[in-house]
Amino acid sequence: MKLKYAVIGAGAIGGYYGGRLAHSGNEVHFLFHSEYDHVKKNGLRVDSVVGDFLVQPINAYSATADMPKCDVVIVALKSTQNHLLPDMLRPILHDGTVVVLIQNGLGLEEELAQQFPNLTIAGGMAFICSSRVGVGHISHQDYGPLTVGFYQHPKQEVLLQMKADFENAQVPFNIAEDLNVARWKKLVWNIPYNGLTVALNTSTDVIMRTSSSRQLVTDMMEEVLAGAEVCGAKIDHSFIDDMLSMTDKMTPYSPSMKLDFDNKRQMEIRAIYSNPIRIAKASGFYMRKVEMLEQQLLFIQERMRG
Amino acid sequence: MKLKYAVIGAGAIGGYYGGRLAHSGNEVHFLFHSEYDHVKKNGLRVDSVVGDFLVQPINAYSATADMPKCDVVIVALKSTQNHLLPDMLRPILHDGTVVVLIQNGLGLEEELAQQFPNLTIAGGMAFICSSRVGVGHISHQDYGPLTVGFYQHPKQEVLLQMKADFENAQVPFNIAEDLNVARWKKLVWNIPYNGLTVALNTSTDVIMRTSSSRQLVTDMMEEVLAGAEVCGAKIDHSFIDDMLSMTDKMTPYSPSMKLDFDNKRQMEIRAIYSNPIRIAKASGFYMRKVEMLEQQLLFIQERMRG
Repeated sequence: MKLKYAVIGAGAIGGYYGGRLAHSGNEVHFLFHSEYDHVKKNGLRVDSVVGDFLVQPINAYSATADMPKCDVVIVALKSTQNHLLPDMLRPILHDGTVVVLIQNGLGLEEELAQQFPNLTIAGGMAFICSSRVGVGHISHQDYGPLTVGFYQHPKQEVLLQMKADFENAQVPFNIAEDLNVARWKKLVWNIPYNGLTVALNTSTDVIMRTSSSRQLVTDMMEEVLAGAEVCGAKIDHSFIDDMLSMTDKMTPYSPSMKLDFDNKRQMEIRAIYSNPIRIAKASGFYMRKVEMLEQQLLFIQERMRG
Repeated sequence: MKLKYAVIGAGAIGGYYGGRLAHSGNEVHFLFHSEYDHVKKNGLRVDSVVGDFLVQPINAYSATADMPKCDVVIVALKSTQNHLLPDMLRPILHDGTVVVLIQNGLGLEEELAQQFPNLTIAGGMAFICSSRVGVGHISHQDYGPLTVGFYQHPKQEVLLQMKADFENAQVPFNIAEDLNVARWKKLVWNIPYNGLTVALNTSTDVIMRTSSSRQLVTDMMEEVLAGAEVCGAKIDHSFIDDMLSMTDKMTPYSPSMKLDFDNKRQMEIRAIYSNPIRIAKASGFYMRKVEMLEQQLLFIQERMRG
């Protein structure tokens, strides 16, 4: 089976994965916005720790209406853009299309499923350090594994072919048996560090070596585990220690939300905070410290605008 | 009965109240630190919305060892200095002395009582806007009532005489029947606004007109009410609405902790946050958002030092 890929949101994440797939011989169609003219002419440049490459010629588009229908649609937009997604997707879906949301947070597949009840939807989690360093130019600094699991109407044979394609393209690929568990596990890290680096205007290493903030991180992780459990995602308590010691070993790091804050871009508060808080509350657990962080981030976002 | 007063910590609060008492003819002995030489020579100057005055000559001292034993000792130090209090107090106490802690927070009378189990200890809450604007120079901008209640070994006749002396000195004076309730009531305002103006680096009016922070203030007030209740201080829920609408009507205001933060002084985290959190937790209620604010303030304090 030969899969035809689309990449919606060809930035640091989508551009890297899509670029890898195209570079290793897959048919990949990329949607660009402001970068379209540059990329159409010069190609997509990826500097990567596992080898640099240029995607040229490239199937670049400025609107999905011009793209062919695809078998796999990789959505790597920031989740703050997801209200645009239904209209963007319609032209490129056929009856068997698999849409993979490689995005942070919780509840995004559910929102898409409300618009497309019969669509095969999967969620993807990228464990990667990459960034857009110029127009049509991505820098991949570290890691790279992608984890994908189905949200509804699974198509196992497509997922297995994706795994083969990604691995052939030098991207480690894991299949998540339970997307809900995988999403909540990612939140155990994302919820404390994304927001606290913004609210305390600092980096992960300073948070970890200050006892009060280190304890606060732990408290929030405990809340996320309790929230996950009432939502049917049981995560072993030792996972907290794993996350803490992983972060202890990391080089000082600014999570994506901190980069958004520093660059005065909109933060992904809804997907990473509001949705998990609401979903856990509906199932009976109130993540109070997590909610306080959400409230502070909403305050900061509002002041940033004003 | 003629009372002999001592004022320990003759700053914005102690200097104002002690100054009023001296100006209206009471015997008041003031302890100064860095301001001693200036005040000894030039007196204590108070600019006040209810009338300016100068205390000159003044009973000024640079150590309590030089002071006479007094009937009422007004302690208006910042609570971060309370570890110095036992040694400072000893020279000026007689068997009948009443010590009044005009300080923010909770648990300070208890700490003092551990050192002086037989001492008459009261707590005082000042509802006042005043500040030190220069050496030996206090500016009193608004309000002024003082509320005092006993913590242990009450001496009602002294309290009634104090009330008469303060009222004669143009200071409205309320007697708190239950100090615990009065302390917790003050915390309903102090806990959200002191810390949040620091953590969000803003002022009360901005907090009030931003929906997320306004909700957070309300959430924290609810926690304080629940904490108070398990500690035997039942406060009516309508008090929250009273505090919110009072703050809505206030001119933009920087609470004392925000002033400490702006001037890189130590913040009263222990008295206003750590003690209430610990005391409520011991009685069975965990103020989670309040604790998160404490953790953030400890982080900020630690970074300020570093």
